[in-house]
Amino acid sequence: MGTASLGELAVRFGCTLQGDPDVRITHVATLERADPQSLTFLANPRYRRYLGQTKAGAVVLDAQFAAECPVPALIAKNPYATYARIATLLHPPPPVTPGRHPTAVIDSTAVIDPTAAIGPLAVIGARTRIGTRCAIGPGCVVLDDVTIGADTRLVASVTLCSSVVIGERCVLNPGVVIGGDGFGFAPDADGLVKVPQIGGVRIGNDVEVGASTTIDRGTIEDTLIEDGVKLDNQIQIGHNVRIGAHTVVAGCTGISGSTTIGARCMIAGMVGIAGHLSICDDVVVTGRSFVNSSIRKPGYYSGGITVDESTRFRKNAARFHRLDELARQVRRLAGEAPEPDGGDDE
Amino acid sequence: MGTASLGELAVRFGCTLQGDPDVRITHVATLERADPQSLTFLANPRYRRYLGQTKAGAVVLDAQFAAECPVPALIAKNPYATYARIATLLHPPPPVTPGRHPTAVIDSTAVIDPTAAIGPLAVIGARTRIGTRCAIGPGCVVLDDVTIGADTRLVASVTLCSSVVIGERCVLNPGVVIGGDGFGFAPDADGLVKVPQIGGVRIGNDVEVGASTTIDRGTIEDTLIEDGVKLDNQIQIGHNVRIGAHTVVAGCTGISGSTTIGARCMIAGMVGIAGHLSICDDVVVTGRSFVNSSIRKPGYYSGGITVDESTRFRKNAARFHRLDELARQVRRLAGEAPEPDGGDDE
Amino acid sequence: MGTASLGELAVRFGCTLQGDPDVRITHVATLERADPQSLTFLANPRYRRYLGQTKAGAVVLDAQFAAECPVPALIAKNPYATYARIATLLHPPPPVTPGRHPTAVIDSTAVIDPTAAIGPLAVIGARTRIGTRCAIGPGCVVLDDVTIGADTRLVASVTLCSSVVIGERCVLNPGVVIGGDGFGFAPDADGLVKVPQIGGVRIGNDVEVGASTTIDRGTIEDTLIEDGVKLDNQIQIGHNVRIGAHTVVAGCTGISGSTTIGARCMIAGMVGIAGHLSICDDVVVTGRSFVNSSIRKPGYYSGGITVDESTRFRKNAARFHRLDELARQVRRLAGEAPEPDGGDDE
Repeated sequence: MGTASLGELAVRFGCTLQGDPDVRITHVATLERADPQSLTFLANPRYRRYLGQTKAGAVVLDAQFAAECPVPALIAKNPYATYARIATLLHPPPPVTPGRHPTAVIDSTAVIDPTAAIGPLAVIGARTRIGTRCAIGPGCVVLDDVTIGADTRLVASVTLCSSVVIGERCVLNPGVVIGGDGFGFAPDADGLVKVPQIGGVRIGNDVEVGASTTIDRGTIEDTLIEDGVKLDNQIQIGHNVRIGAHTVVAGCTGISGSTTIGARCMIAGMVGIAGHLSICDDVVVTGRSFVNSSIRKPGYYSGGITVDESTRFRKNAARFHRLDELARQVRRLAGEAPEPDGGDDE
Repeated sequence: MGTASLGELAVRFGCTLQGDPDVRITHVATLERADPQSLTFLANPRYRRYLGQTKAGAVVLDAQFAAECPVPALIAKNPYATYARIATLLHPPPPVTPGRHPTAVIDSTAVIDPTAAIGPLAVIGARTRIGTRCAIGPGCVVLDDVTIGADTRLVASVTLCSSVVIGERCVLNPGVVIGGDGFGFAPDADGLVKVPQIGGVRIGNDVEVGASTTIDRGTIEDTLIEDGVKLDNQIQIGHNVRIGAHTVVAGCTGISGSTTIGARCMIAGMVGIAGHLSICDDVVVTGRSFVNSSIRKPGYYSGGITVDESTRFRKNAARFHRLDELARQVRRLAGEAPEPDGGDDE
Repeated sequence: MGTASLGELAVRFGCTLQGDPDVRITHVATLERADPQSLTFLANPRYRRYLGQTKAGAVVLDAQFAAECPVPALIAKNPYATYARIATLLHPPPPVTPGRHPTAVIDSTAVIDPTAAIGPLAVIGARTRIGTRCAIGPGCVVLDDVTIGADTRLVASVTLCSSVVIGERCVLNPGVVIGGDGFGFAPDADGLVKVPQIGGVRIGNDVEVGASTTIDRGTIEDTLIEDGVKLDNQIQIGHNVRIGAHTVVAGCTGISGSTTIGARCMIAGMVGIAGHLSICDDVVVTGRSFVNSSIRKPGYYSGGITVDESTRFRKNAARFHRLDELARQVRRLAGEAPEPDGGDDE
């Protein structure tokens, strides 16, 4: 944990300081529970009500709230990002102590930078290359022919299958599996014939992958996750998927095989995206949506029907199941001719 | 495996015995396949049809079914809970043999009760404390500064990140990850800035966590799971979530960050709950619901539209996508004035 | 990697060869990127546009496309399955090198065929039996009394709990957990009493299980996955479920406890199936459906409402939440008598 004065922070992070530059900060806290050694922030207006009572050493906030701040303030254009940067200074990731734990099992042909740390009971396969300052945590399994770029961290219990390539400065949380076989079977008279999954997975720089997210290897070519993509927990990414740079995907979402997602998209939680689709750049898909056709125009897309009190929901859902009939009845009442077909959703 | 006479069981579990108290029971079985050494039960009325033919040594059941039971009966007020208790007596969890497997990698600063069992190839980090009679199964990774209470069992391949606190008598199934980084990124001109996730996770007593469920650490304060909570498999719990005592959550459900769920709730399977919400005590949410606003009143809530034959479903779904238009047409037919706005679901 | 001439391939896989039988093939590729040493295929008509420009050594395709193929063609009745078989010949699974890695922890009572391979840091429990040519990859944990049939491969980081039985020629991808405790608790005055989960899991031959899929052990009898079942990633299968032979389940689907699914079904991705149901043979359930009643007739079933532009979706969804009222209004307009009840979806 670091420590810094408000004056130093204002200079370093380009904030306007309102208050004593010699106040020292040692850690971060919430507005509600901050003490005088802590830094906090106001970004979401719903927490504004806590500002007047805060006991923080300083608050990072937008200029519009500075007047009502009872303690020193660091006024920033983007308070949340500025808070994030200061918090990283005060609470840096654990340092990487170079070396190989004696219980790690490292193939003699692996090439491991001397500044990298290989934790207890990790496995490193043949011809695998681990870059400078990488941290491979306890219990990670990295199979053959994997490449991991500089400053990437596998927290613990991460599994990388053969021929996976990971960029620099990535963070892979526990339970992540990258490079498992894609789901490909060809139906035949005898049953299902497995289609060999011989492509790899390539992951760019500055990618974060949440706990127990799975990314399958490509069928022939590589599954591709571009720079700056952030993936939450328990996401499933099928074979041959491509995700463009700086796209963010929230937890429990599933992306089926051979779908391409553009750059700077925001895909919310528990979204299901069918296979072989194309989603363009700058698309936002809200929670629980089901995408089963391509999206060619940037914008907001939704599909999640929300919860209701059960009795009422069920009445409405029962009507849904007879909705085509209802619409036909309305046409008749309106004196319109019957349609040739009631339409199709897919 | 234990063994007991019906007389002993009736006394110990407060049942009325109908039949020979000297019949000995050695194991449990289903009504259909029970043999004379086995105990079975009738709780769900849909299985009543198997009662008349059962060859069990005894059946735990409600008084109303005693007359039709062809074998000895243990009559109980709550047959299912009584069955569960007797089954636990006959089939106790595997005993914990104290000691550290020689292949476990245990930091010299860890404090491990001498009655605890540390399995093969487990990792125990610095300053971690393991309580009395705990069982840490094979391949578990427990990082630094973790505390695990008495009689808690990590079955195998469980990962606990640093600063996680687990209570007493918990069971964590394989693949569970507790304390992975929460999903927090601040958008900025340069892309997304990672918000350090420096809170922990605190889990109460008597909590059960199913296979591959993930619980993220808090952003600043702790993610909190209270006493007696039962979590099924593949549940995702975001940072800063709080779940109240004795709440039950079924498989594949996702709970987004900073949401609070009350006590004694029942959340069914594959439910999606958005972030920053508050759900009060005693709420039941049925399967596949999407909760994206707070629930302030106990009761039953639903949101899952059920499957239909595909052709019919698609016709109705196509109508759904023109439902606002249909409603406007009905207003016109009814001679009502057009509404200023068609409403909004969120 | 193998190598073969087109003449050999035509004979071995029963194709009609159009072109030079002496052309040698060393690997597979996509139509777009194939070089003259590679084999490719045309199965999905959406990729037909790449056929005319391909530089492949040969293309596996249906007779109807042979005339427009600019390079040698292997004409097959089932081009995709034929491609899959040839690709397996050219890119066989990694060979199994018999032996036990010195860092594997193997109970002295385990029975391991001398042709099997036990990888680094794997754990094999008491009385567990591993069949001929099995490969147990790095970091796998196989607890006590497990049986694994011949030629089965646990890629890495797979966890099998006690008393699990796996058939022959299965592939289990990383993160798979089989035999975790089912989710069974009996409510009682004191809270929730755990119901011991003492059944096992039995998995047939030729079953494939995707990364991080979980299959719970049975409550009393076994959870059962029959021969030839293919399970994608992140599927959750509850206790006592039975899945019939050759059924295919796509990723992120959840199947609740005690449900039976027939043979040759195709269950798409992110489908939720409630508990205690019965689904007959030859049922297809499309993506994102919610099945909460039994299906007794083969056919296609759907339930996923698709995404729309957000403003429009929300207007329609708002109408959905008043659909019962709308339907009642239409009845009044039509001069029909009000219904006694608006219906119920469940």
